[in-house]
Amino acid sequence: MLEVKTPEEVLALIPREFTPITDREETVPLCEAAGRILARDIAAKEYVPDFDRSTVDGYACRARDTFGCSDAIPAILNLSGEVLMGQGADYELKKESCVYVPTGGAIPKGADCAVMIEYTEDYGDGTVGILKPGAPGMNLIFRGDDVHPGKVILRAGRKLTASDIGALAAVGETRVPVRRRLQVGVISTGDELVPPDVTPAPGQVRDVNSPMLTALLQEWGAEVRGYGIVVDDEARLRKTVHRAAEECDAVLISGGSSVGVKDAACRIIEGMGRLLFHGIAIKPGKPTILGRAGNKPLIGLPGHPAAAWFVATLFVLPLLDRLAGRETEKPSLTAVLSESVSANHGRMQVNACRLEKRDGALVAVPIRSKSGLITQLAGADGYFIIPRDSEGLPKGAEIQVYKE
Amino acid sequence: MLEVKTPEEVLALIPREFTPITDREETVPLCEAAGRILARDIAAKEYVPDFDRSTVDGYACRARDTFGCSDAIPAILNLSGEVLMGQGADYELKKESCVYVPTGGAIPKGADCAVMIEYTEDYGDGTVGILKPGAPGMNLIFRGDDVHPGKVILRAGRKLTASDIGALAAVGETRVPVRRRLQVGVISTGDELVPPDVTPAPGQVRDVNSPMLTALLQEWGAEVRGYGIVVDDEARLRKTVHRAAEECDAVLISGGSSVGVKDAACRIIEGMGRLLFHGIAIKPGKPTILGRAGNKPLIGLPGHPAAAWFVATLFVLPLLDRLAGRETEKPSLTAVLSESVSANHGRMQVNACRLEKRDGALVAVPIRSKSGLITQLAGADGYFIIPRDSEGLPKGAEIQVYKE
Repeated sequence: MLEVKTPEEVLALIPREFTPITDREETVPLCEAAGRILARDIAAKEYVPDFDRSTVDGYACRARDTFGCSDAIPAILNLSGEVLMGQGADYELKKESCVYVPTGGAIPKGADCAVMIEYTEDYGDGTVGILKPGAPGMNLIFRGDDVHPGKVILRAGRKLTASDIGALAAVGETRVPVRRRLQVGVISTGDELVPPDVTPAPGQVRDVNSPMLTALLQEWGAEVRGYGIVVDDEARLRKTVHRAAEECDAVLISGGSSVGVKDAACRIIEGMGRLLFHGIAIKPGKPTILGRAGNKPLIGLPGHPAAAWFVATLFVLPLLDRLAGRETEKPSLTAVLSESVSANHGRMQVNACRLEKRDGALVAVPIRSKSGLITQLAGADGYFIIPRDSEGLPKGAEIQVYKE
Repeated sequence: MLEVKTPEEVLALIPREFTPITDREETVPLCEAAGRILARDIAAKEYVPDFDRSTVDGYACRARDTFGCSDAIPAILNLSGEVLMGQGADYELKKESCVYVPTGGAIPKGADCAVMIEYTEDYGDGTVGILKPGAPGMNLIFRGDDVHPGKVILRAGRKLTASDIGALAAVGETRVPVRRRLQVGVISTGDELVPPDVTPAPGQVRDVNSPMLTALLQEWGAEVRGYGIVVDDEARLRKTVHRAAEECDAVLISGGSSVGVKDAACRIIEGMGRLLFHGIAIKPGKPTILGRAGNKPLIGLPGHPAAAWFVATLFVLPLLDRLAGRETEKPSLTAVLSESVSANHGRMQVNACRLEKRDGALVAVPIRSKSGLITQLAGADGYFIIPRDSEGLPKGAEIQVYKE
């Protein structure tokens, strides 16, 4: 009999048993790169900005021509024109001269500061009064201040965010090398299951886990291959799991709540590689199996949809993060528990909840149900965790609510 | 001169000035419904489960036939067969009989409990010993316990999660009524801008905001229409903003860092409806304009990409949440600040940061840059906020880091 692992043991085991898959890449246009995982370091090939720029609307000039000026004694400079946005300023500014420059505009050679327009006066006779002295570098960004050729701006393995997309646009990286999406196979087992679009006959129920897990995995960023519903027949299940393991990077076998199916899944996984554990000390979600065929995780999820949802969120997504070579992050919302929740199982307990705003405060309302399928899933805004060593949480407790 | 609003005033103004758009719906298959906003309440049309089920592997029987039994004095019941998964059990269980039933299997009429197999003994002679008394309802889920016809399982306006997809599958809702995606127009302005795939000439820079905002808005769930780069010409900008407002539910005008363009954007917005404010007391991000044409927000974003990113995340997404009729939620990660950050501006300050794991703790490393475009955007894992009334945050402070 294999031991039951604690949640901490399961999460610690993942990086020991599985290694990131980093050798498959493809190139996508910038507009499709958000959410994808960068395959290589991206180094700038250019200077950004490529010219010295003003950060204010004002006059570019030599700082030393303004030293000592004031409201009472302005420095009088010759106005030599205006820099237009989008135009270069590839000329030398004469001594005791200035040029009007808008925010972001180029600065001519010789100018070493920009004085904000608020501190100047245009006399209209071809001269401008500077009322506040400049200093070298004041209100300027110099060529390459932000980025220079060879500077790595984004590292391989990063999941690209909208702001990363902005950075890639800035350096002209419009074809982005990203890792291929992980392929995850989803198999549902159970003689009682029918596809969701079929009306169940007596004794049958609809397959909830396949569509639910598919949505969860796709949201994570995986490409999901569905292998449909397999009846409780070990030979057929073995054939399907083998095919899925050939075609995918990870395989989820969900359902099979009966002991026989669990045992069959264990035998199949053992025959393909190694069974890592059979059971997690979590409620609900205990009947979870993890094995591997080489670096490919083979995961047996509980048949109960709420349990499958929790286990997929708590353990399968971190496992996929590992295969994708990224850190797992679980942002949470702080909320106040609306009522007490008991726990006394010697197991970490997971509870779905709804979130409500009450008097401006975020309140978590636990969803209670008697092994309900839908009642626990529908309308859940997230879940919270009651630690193993706790007897429950009192009403009014401040808790962290995790989204999927 | 219009007043500058505080961030709190801006967020309070949104629900007063804008109303949810709830009248446009479309139907999508279940496999495409995740992340979409439900257009109508979904009520179950069936009982779930549609039959009385066992929650354990064991024997279904009449509880009263087991009263008083024990390890020493088992109740002897006639084994009348086995319920198969996926099959009905549409017959009456005889008195002093039992039937083997797997987890999730149907229960015949007359049976009112299921005894776990661990507390039974199959004598192999057509009888089974029950070692622990049952009680009516024990280990059963009754027809409709979870859901009955007419019970609303999901409310209109909800953004569908993976677990919601599971609930919809359970009740056979494979064609899902969802709200049409909001159409958001994105316009970049500035004579200096070139598209990201063009090499900038002297004085030019690439358009960062359009691709960045597009990625952010798409991730939120909007359909983005790009109106390209408009040069600093009020007549052309007016024409483009008018067209975008006709075709979209909201329009973002980004860039135009020069005073002239800001003024032009204000005039254009005023001419189309009402200017609500011109400036938010936030650093960076002050030069933000909000107006409306009817219920359509017209938003002028700062030209500086980091400022545009913060303003879009902090104010534009909540505005779109309002149009979509949903609450804004901002999950955060708790992290420890790696170094002190000063602030003394009388404005709320937003700072991008990287997140690192150090000795198991999550550490936020502020990204410092001199008005840098890329340095602030690239590799930012999120941002944190320094309140208006604060002079900064000390090294080691516990902060909340928000993702995009």
